[in-house]
Amino acid sequence: MDKLQIGSTELESRLLIGTGKYSSNEILPQVIESSGTQVVTVALRRVDITSSEENILNFIDKKITLLPNTSGARTAEEAVRIARLAQAAGCGNWIKIEVISDNKYLLPDNYETIKATEILAKEGFVVLPYMNPDLMDAKRMADAGAAAVMPLGAPIGSNRGIKTKEMVRILIDEMNLPIIVDAGLGAPSHAAEAMEMGADAVLVNTAIASSGDPVAMGEAFKLATEAGRKAYLSRLGPQRTVAEASSPLTGFLR
Amino acid sequence: MDKLQIGSTELESRLLIGTGKYSSNEILPQVIESSGTQVVTVALRRVDITSSEENILNFIDKKITLLPNTSGARTAEEAVRIARLAQAAGCGNWIKIEVISDNKYLLPDNYETIKATEILAKEGFVVLPYMNPDLMDAKRMADAGAAAVMPLGAPIGSNRGIKTKEMVRILIDEMNLPIIVDAGLGAPSHAAEAMEMGADAVLVNTAIASSGDPVAMGEAFKLATEAGRKAYLSRLGPQRTVAEASSPLTGFLR
Amino acid sequence: MDKLQIGSTELESRLLIGTGKYSSNEILPQVIESSGTQVVTVALRRVDITSSEENILNFIDKKITLLPNTSGARTAEEAVRIARLAQAAGCGNWIKIEVISDNKYLLPDNYETIKATEILAKEGFVVLPYMNPDLMDAKRMADAGAAAVMPLGAPIGSNRGIKTKEMVRILIDEMNLPIIVDAGLGAPSHAAEAMEMGADAVLVNTAIASSGDPVAMGEAFKLATEAGRKAYLSRLGPQRTVAEASSPLTGFLR
Amino acid sequence: MDKLQIGSTELESRLLIGTGKYSSNEILPQVIESSGTQVVTVALRRVDITSSEENILNFIDKKITLLPNTSGARTAEEAVRIARLAQAAGCGNWIKIEVISDNKYLLPDNYETIKATEILAKEGFVVLPYMNPDLMDAKRMADAGAAAVMPLGAPIGSNRGIKTKEMVRILIDEMNLPIIVDAGLGAPSHAAEAMEMGADAVLVNTAIASSGDPVAMGEAFKLATEAGRKAYLSRLGPQRTVAEASSPLTGFLR
Repeated sequence: MDKLQIGSTELESRLLIGTGKYSSNEILPQVIESSGTQVVTVALRRVDITSSEENILNFIDKKITLLPNTSGARTAEEAVRIARLAQAAGCGNWIKIEVISDNKYLLPDNYETIKATEILAKEGFVVLPYMNPDLMDAKRMADAGAAAVMPLGAPIGSNRGIKTKEMVRILIDEMNLPIIVDAGLGAPSHAAEAMEMGADAVLVNTAIASSGDPVAMGEAFKLATEAGRKAYLSRLGPQRTVAEASSPLTGFLR
Repeated sequence: MDKLQIGSTELESRLLIGTGKYSSNEILPQVIESSGTQVVTVALRRVDITSSEENILNFIDKKITLLPNTSGARTAEEAVRIARLAQAAGCGNWIKIEVISDNKYLLPDNYETIKATEILAKEGFVVLPYMNPDLMDAKRMADAGAAAVMPLGAPIGSNRGIKTKEMVRILIDEMNLPIIVDAGLGAPSHAAEAMEMGADAVLVNTAIASSGDPVAMGEAFKLATEAGRKAYLSRLGPQRTVAEASSPLTGFLR
Repeated sequence: MDKLQIGSTELESRLLIGTGKYSSNEILPQVIESSGTQVVTVALRRVDITSSEENILNFIDKKITLLPNTSGARTAEEAVRIARLAQAAGCGNWIKIEVISDNKYLLPDNYETIKATEILAKEGFVVLPYMNPDLMDAKRMADAGAAAVMPLGAPIGSNRGIKTKEMVRILIDEMNLPIIVDAGLGAPSHAAEAMEMGADAVLVNTAIASSGDPVAMGEAFKLATEAGRKAYLSRLGPQRTVAEASSPLTGFLR
Repeated sequence: MDKLQIGSTELESRLLIGTGKYSSNEILPQVIESSGTQVVTVALRRVDITSSEENILNFIDKKITLLPNTSGARTAEEAVRIARLAQAAGCGNWIKIEVISDNKYLLPDNYETIKATEILAKEGFVVLPYMNPDLMDAKRMADAGAAAVMPLGAPIGSNRGIKTKEMVRILIDEMNLPIIVDAGLGAPSHAAEAMEMGADAVLVNTAIASSGDPVAMGEAFKLATEAGRKAYLSRLGPQRTVAEASSPLTGFLR
């Protein structure tokens, strides 16, 4: 069966989801269910370490792999601290590194991210760095021990699709570790397209959370991700400039 | 439940498929099954009226609605003759009008198509005209009794996607009858996108038939079509130029 | 020298401009000058037949070819009447046929346009029909005596560029009369692109008239139109998926 | 007058050109003339230090600012060495840093490029780093003393246009030093578009050198670059989804 391996974990679902921007945490279990996701990212800040009823972890089934993220970190050092706090809080050893100091476009800082990747991979974390798609930096992240790389499609929350297609395609072509397209995917067709290009998985948050019906939208992304994966495995036909008839065109009535 | 009504028929599947270009007819039943389609288009020329074993109709389950097409017609008159032959051959009263005299791009002739639509609709056919997306002509087809219109996304068999997006979007916005995007859809993401835009259905042939694994590709298009429809019904969020954080960004460590 | 022939007129400039939407007619002579245009389209309604000082014709140099348009016509018959009025008012025998009954997208009605083309071409007009890009209809316009066809790039005034690229490209490939891309060109790069594709000319109105500096924008479109034409004549190199070094890459320091 | 300042030099032309891939050096003076360029980049390897007749510098007018590039460098250290050699060879103190270790897509290594920028800027070079468009790295290059940054539009020699539009737009929006779009510009419309977006200049090599007529293509890029700059300064009008009439539409004949 077609599975995605990250660290030592095998995943059947190739759709990862985020937990921000929902009107209420109450809806999360249904979105997790409808999307079929097996990996959920959570900003550590949302994790109430005192385990009150408000704790977002209460809304995430134990069978789900938690992917705490270092949202809020502006340097490698801060990311490392958040990662360790997440582990101490019982969030497991997966970590999505987000190092962002640009407040307008929320673009990742690849250089600081590479540094944090190296430190945390050595400590045994399964490290998934969020990154600006850059081949050299992806190679450095791989060398630093990343379990996958998460290139952005467009700025976080922008819903604009894979605006970085050229560079993501190159990462897919050249890298030997999983490529998870993250950020900017605003519609199921964007997720399908990423998968058709050969991405290994996608992460979606805003497009689901801010839709009119997050539960249905979660399912829509699930279907589209599966569709794109199946199409990739089945190989799409070539594009042509001129037409090619599906049906016989000649001589029927003549 | 969300159904598509064409003529007096209610459809749950919004993916129509074609039967051309398959390496063998033997695979058709599996593709019909995997794609979940309820409407299959067939060039009348492929229908062996003498009902030999080679007859393509033998490979299409009786519960499927047949949509014979007038492929090969170069004028309204020829299209009308083919439609009547199809009906006489037991193919039912649905007809997809294709009037094409351009051999390179296989572009439809809207004018002749409108004429054929009018004649056949009066004779009781459920008429689905294949068309170049043009608002005025779509209105004429509606006035002539079309049950739906089938604007092309790109030249037949080109696999290029919805290159006519601007005009298809206008048809969806302005017309009150079903819009079925036909021709040129080359990947599941294209089908999802058409549905997200608000198309009522899509028709796919080449992309499934010429893929490495038509049965799996049929399922991929089924999933993508459903994904796009669900997304449309659930309403996609707006696109933004700047970022919008999913996770809290401030003050965590400071 | 590279000239464009329309009817019996030879043009050096391949940029046609419109006269609507300017804050004042006073600026028109400067825009005509900066854009280098030799053909200016005018809605007959703007022509004051009593020849008052307000008459827009007073602002257009006599050496410019007037292209009165039938803006306001909803049928072929109305377009024909406007054309004859324009001629009677001394606007010459060129006519741009616009037949539009859709008030939201202002899309042309190809069918009525073909009828008007036929009538007016027989009366000796040099007929330039504004059209939805459709190969069959372009052929009918050619047969009806059109001197050129004017496919739209996007809805009038939308500034969106050549959204109908696929179909315009086919017209350029298949037709033997001049193709003038009209409507929707919102930036000089759009005009350059149309010319690079092989269009024979472009018509621009809104993008110049509604810019912050119409005189400078007129010159910008002039330069871009010339740039695109030169590039077309000089033949662009092929696009590649992978890189191809401009500079020697090997062995310099090793 | 609208000038571009780089280092202490004021430029009227915003089109920089490269010297690779020409069938012969003999044509260079004409391309420099037709393109109106004032800055020409040269791979140091092409500079024959022994000043033979073959020396490419013989074909470049003395009034042109030379921009030697470090093509062939795979590390910051190699780039620094090449820069110093260039200066010693009399090529002046401008340097375009290219550090590339990827042989398929020829993508720049931002990290090594930043290091070289810092060293060379301190030595008094006017440093123009070729880069993958990344906001954080552009800031680092600015801090390191770069005189401008040169983000790529697409892989070198690919002629594909500004595939990195989203990121280039962000650099233009956020950075205070000149942005020169380099690599991948394959047609004058691409150059015009970069300038319309607000880029300060463009660098073109392959599209001119490999066209059917490099001298004419050089002029085409010159015109397009000027067109885009003028359009940027004159401010383009907004894009609209629906139409907006240029001409009066109501009541003319009614």
